[in-house]
Order: sequence, then C-alpha cells, then structure tokens
Amino acid sequence: MSNTTESNTPKNIRIVLVETAGSRNLGSVARVMKNFGLSELWLVNPKCDRHGDEARQMAVHAPDILDNAKVVDNLPAALIDCQRAIATAGRIDQGEMKVTTPSQGMHWLRQAKTSAIVFGAEDRGLSNVEIQHCQQVMRIPVNPEYPSLNLAQAVGICCYQLQLSKENTPNVVNLTSQIAQDLIESAPIDLANRNDLEACYQQLEAVLLKIGYVYPHTATHRLRKFRNIFDRANLSPSEVAMLRGILRQVNWATAHLD
Amino acid sequence: MSNTTESNTPKNIRIVLVETAGSRNLGSVARVMKNFGLSELWLVNPKCDRHGDEARQMAVHAPDILDNAKVVDNLPAALIDCQRAIATAGRIDQGEMKVTTPSQGMHWLRQAKTSAIVFGAEDRGLSNVEIQHCQQVMRIPVNPEYPSLNLAQAVGICCYQLQLSKENTPNVVNLTSQIAQDLIESAPIDLANRNDLEACYQQLEAVLLKIGYVYPHTATHRLRKFRNIFDRANLSPSEVAMLRGILRQVNWATAHLD
Repeated sequence: MSNTTESNTPKNIRIVLVETAGSRNLGSVARVMKNFGLSELWLVNPKCDRHGDEARQMAVHAPDILDNAKVVDNLPAALIDCQRAIATAGRIDQGEMKVTTPSQGMHWLRQAKTSAIVFGAEDRGLSNVEIQHCQQVMRIPVNPEYPSLNLAQAVGICCYQLQLSKENTPNVVNLTSQIAQDLIESAPIDLANRNDLEACYQQLEAVLLKIGYVYPHTATHRLRKFRNIFDRANLSPSEVAMLRGILRQVNWATAHLD
Repeated sequence: MSNTTESNTPKNIRIVLVETAGSRNLGSVARVMKNFGLSELWLVNPKCDRHGDEARQMAVHAPDILDNAKVVDNLPAALIDCQRAIATAGRIDQGEMKVTTPSQGMHWLRQAKTSAIVFGAEDRGLSNVEIQHCQQVMRIPVNPEYPSLNLAQAVGICCYQLQLSKENTPNVVNLTSQIAQDLIESAPIDLANRNDLEACYQQLEAVLLKIGYVYPHTATHRLRKFRNIFDRANLSPSEVAMLRGILRQVNWATAHLD
C-alpha cells in the first residue's frame, strides 16, 4: 500500500464551503487540502476574509489554495459541472435522504469525473434546501454526546478518507462478489452534470405545477421523490436531454392550459 | 453499521502530546478527542497554557479534557501502564522501524487493554529517542509535496481511524463483503414487481404516443431507454404508483388531443 498520493491525485474533487465565518477555519481547510493533494476550493458567500492574516497564518504553505479559491453566491453555482455532490451533515434527522458513511461516500465520489464535498456554515451546517442540491448526505461517525466537529477537522477527515478510498479501490474491485461488481459497473461513465440535472428538475416542477399534479405547497416534497429516483439512476447527459425533450413535449401538448 | 460510538468507547486509549507549543492546538485536540469519545489526554512537558483563553476557546465544549489532562515531564512517564504505544511521524526516514498505516496501527492498539498514540511537537515532531519508547511508528498517507499536518488534524484523523477500526474489526474478507452489502443495500429493500413496472412502461408508451413524443415505429427503441433508467433506479412500489399517477395526470391534461 502506498503511503503517498500519486499521479492520480484527486484534483477533480472540489471542496465547497458554504458561508464560512471563521478565517482561521478557512486557512486550516486550505492547509489540510494541500496535505492530501486537493487544490480546488469553492466558497459560497463567504463571511470572512480569505486574504487576511488569520487565514494565511493557518494555511501555512497553502496560500495558493486560498488565492485560487472560487467565490460564488449560491450553492448551485459551486456545483456547476459536477457530476456528483455529497453534503456533509452532523444532525441526525435528514428527512428521507439516505445517510451514507464517509467510506461509502468517498468511494462513490471517486467514480465520477468531477465531484464535490459540501460543508455548511460553522454554526448551522447545511439547510435542507442546500442538501437537496446534493445527491447524497454523509455523516462522520462521532460521539453523540458531542457531535459537532470543527469545520477544518471535518474537511481533514474527508480528505483522509478520500485518500483511503483511492488506496482501497483495487481490493474492493478484486474481492467483492460479482453482484457488487455489477453494481459498481452499472453506473455509466459519462454522468450528467449537476446543473443540467438541476435544470431538468426545475423544468419537471414547472410542468407538474402546470398540469396540476402538484401545488406550490406540495411541489418541494414531491419533487424530492423524483430527485431521489433520478439521482439513483446515475443519468447520462443524453438521458437528461431525453427527459427534457419529453417535458417540452408535455408542455406543448398542454398549451391550452395556459 | 453504527454511526455513533457506543458503550465500548475507547476510554482506555490515551492521546499523548509531547512539548506542544500552541495553546490553540491543545484546545482543538481536546475538542476532537471528545467528538470521538476519547477523554484521556497526557501532556509531556507542554510549552503552552492549557488553562488560557485560546485553549479553552478552541476546546469549545471539551474544557473538561483540558482540565483533567495529566502533565508529566518525560515520555516514559506518559506511557506508564500502557501495553501498546504508537508514535506518529511525518518524515520519510524512520530508521529501522517498520512504518504502519493508521488502519493497521489503530487496529493493533485496540487489541490492548491500555494504549497510547504519541504526537511530537509542532515544529520538530518526535525525536528518534522518543520514537524508541513506542513499539510502532505510524504515518498518515499525505501528499509528499506538503506532508506537514496540523497537530490537531493529525489527532483528529487518528481518532476517526480508531472509530473506523472499531466498526470494521472483522477481517478483510468480511470487510469487503460489508462493502458489497452496503452497495446492495443502497437500493431500497422494497422493490416494485416486474409486472407493475411493465404496466407503467406500457402507460408511458401510450402517453408518449399521444403527445407525439414518439411514433409507432420509434416507440420501442425510445422506450428501451426509459426502461434502462428506471430499472437502474430500483424503483419501489410507491415510486411506481407515483409515476403512474403523473402519467394519468398528463393524460388528463392532454385530453383535448383525442
């Protein structure tokens, strides 16, 4: 087993921080990302200064990651071009979404070409609406008496698990049953981007509202069920295009309802 | 698999910090120890104040771990009563000692009644003499271009791996079958019957013909793509019922096309 990251360093996995308030946390995140060979940091509506002394002091030899961080004003903008996104959560109740372990989650992210791990603000974590933009929710197994991990610690543990999942992937493929192998391979290599899927879901919602299948107050709940189905299906870009085509056609066919 | 630490919380595993200089690091270590259910902190000749504001601020809800820390003036005194001790090291050259992985190391520590994980000072790590007091040396797999982890991050990753090793105690064969099982279980247990799915596909085909999205000569080919998507998604009976409901609604909304 290798003790170091190699040429297949996961440069295509981004760390997305939503509304981070602590500049020291920001610096610590940059440092631990570089420790594990990650470089893509995205900041959604940050509440602190990534260029200040505190952030740079904690980043130590990783100021480049702070300097090159991409700043956007909403989560979907940070997930653009991502095939897979996983939300991190500390709370117990995540509604109907299945909560995965870091080991499962990082293995799943590695199967995609471009993916993201999303972390919420220090005080409140991710909202349910933010979590809906991701396909999976992951929880680090902590002591229920004090589950609140420091943000940079949570990022560090995910980076470490990402590294483990890289090292363990060959064993998994070689040793698991044929069924598991089939499941692993059943995912198309060419996955649709999150933003294309998001547009598809928006279009679906508009059509369902129009035909009276959902109402404004039931739409979010009902749409979550559709998101679950299509997220599980690992849709390819052409499949998303096909779904959007049929939605356009339904829209056309129901034009008289306007 | 459990997501929380349970009754077998590793209270018999101590964290030993040698000549720690940063009080913030000390506080962060206390916090992450408590996050993972550890409580025994030993400080060898500390160079900072565990009772100061900085340490307590970073410890958040773990000031008790700082207060109850045992302070000694040399490493052997901190390892008293320990059956096993593992030294953490970031450098490549560890002389003749075998370097183990966190996974192997934490599993090995868990087999003892009382054991210790030893961390060196922030600037210099552990000396060769200090390492000799431990039976094993462990290295976290980091990027060789920037291997220097923050002290509290290193402790956090070890605590996390300790938690994993508790959950994954079974041997390699069981471990991989657990991964296979997890993959299998990612599909809902309650799968729709094939005949319900078939009826759903028939209904879909009828609607797509009606709205002019497919023609009789293209329907079979196009429907195969939908079958692929929904078969991959491992639909539950209620999800099939939901899809059929929307198809009925589309049918109703397009009634004028008859």
